[in-house]
Amino acid sequence: MKRLKVSNNVIRRLPRYLRKLDELTENGVSRISSFELGHQLGLTPSQIRQDFSCFGEFGQQGYGYNVPALRDQIAAILGMDRGFTAILIGVGNIGHALMDNFCFAEWGFRLAAAFDINPELIGTVFNGVPIYSMDDLEKFLAENKVDVAVLTVPKEAAISVTARLTGCGIDAIWNFTNLELTEPNSPTIVENIHFSDSLLSLSYYVAERKDEIAARAARAEKQ
Amino acid sequence: MKRLKVSNNVIRRLPRYLRKLDELTENGVSRISSFELGHQLGLTPSQIRQDFSCFGEFGQQGYGYNVPALRDQIAAILGMDRGFTAILIGVGNIGHALMDNFCFAEWGFRLAAAFDINPELIGTVFNGVPIYSMDDLEKFLAENKVDVAVLTVPKEAAISVTARLTGCGIDAIWNFTNLELTEPNSPTIVENIHFSDSLLSLSYYVAERKDEIAARAARAEKQ
Repeated sequence: MKRLKVSNNVIRRLPRYLRKLDELTENGVSRISSFELGHQLGLTPSQIRQDFSCFGEFGQQGYGYNVPALRDQIAAILGMDRGFTAILIGVGNIGHALMDNFCFAEWGFRLAAAFDINPELIGTVFNGVPIYSMDDLEKFLAENKVDVAVLTVPKEAAISVTARLTGCGIDAIWNFTNLELTEPNSPTIVENIHFSDSLLSLSYYVAERKDEIAARAARAEKQ
Repeated sequence: MKRLKVSNNVIRRLPRYLRKLDELTENGVSRISSFELGHQLGLTPSQIRQDFSCFGEFGQQGYGYNVPALRDQIAAILGMDRGFTAILIGVGNIGHALMDNFCFAEWGFRLAAAFDINPELIGTVFNGVPIYSMDDLEKFLAENKVDVAVLTVPKEAAISVTARLTGCGIDAIWNFTNLELTEPNSPTIVENIHFSDSLLSLSYYVAERKDEIAARAARAEKQ
């Protein structure tokens, strides 16, 4: 696929478009205008047209977007048709939750294996995914094509496990440890799940709401 | 606090600023220019000045920003000093992981209670947080000030539990269920943790990297 450099903001919006288009498909909507799509996503129509124009011409003047076609194009842009393989490191609470509830296949990923140090887990299979010893990590990476490592180890182990993964030349790490792993000049792509960023955004909106209510009450009292 | 309507993009950047300022403080940096702050965050200095200008004047021409002062101001804007209270609903894998590893207090929240339907959990205390029966949810909400409900129930229970929470007039839901809970005209603030959005962004970057490598190889072959 020929790619232009696209801004991170646009890339971050693509999964939201995908979710919305999946929802529209589920509801039997097969065509949508940029105006209506924007309305449903809280974006302007021109923003949407501009985002999509980064990847070519998707819509048709006066017709709008073909929902399933646009969905498939965005899925392809996101690499969902590449057959990427993931491994998961650390079958604790979060690792277990992901293996139990998160459908990697739905997003084009195959979860090939998990790794842990707990002897009670090693050698077992959970939801079709074999759990191996951490001792076998390097061997597995040498013998299998792995694109992404899901890092769900405790904080204390994050740095040393990351060093082992980058030492094996892993392409990317999906980081749940709340530790910044990004090193300058490291070729490894790191995507962080920052629970705290999400909670703090929520906190902002709650504080804003309470301030509005207080301001309204103060105004009412004055009158 | 007097508030102007601030764009969601700015609000989403505030927690990142906070994390960066915490990191700078840890490293003993007490003053930083918008140029350097921008460089470290991958933003332009004017973007940073514009973001902060939404909330008043923070920096000083020629001096830059006072790191701890700016940190405290952003923390206040995010509502971290409001003493917000949270409850957690569903002590499964994810709920358990949050209670075990996520430091609510660090972000200004008090996790007051958790709720579950599992009789083995009900009546126990985990990490200082009591776990009550789901049957007692309405009673607890009537008797205690709760600002945010952390929703970590299985997908199947998400809709009915949300209805109970909104029925009690909860202000906000931090939603881990991967189900869109937002109803038009609902006054409840919903913040979603979308694991899939994060994985798909990562997928995009991995696909982009592979395309670049393939393009480079194709060019080398031609020469």
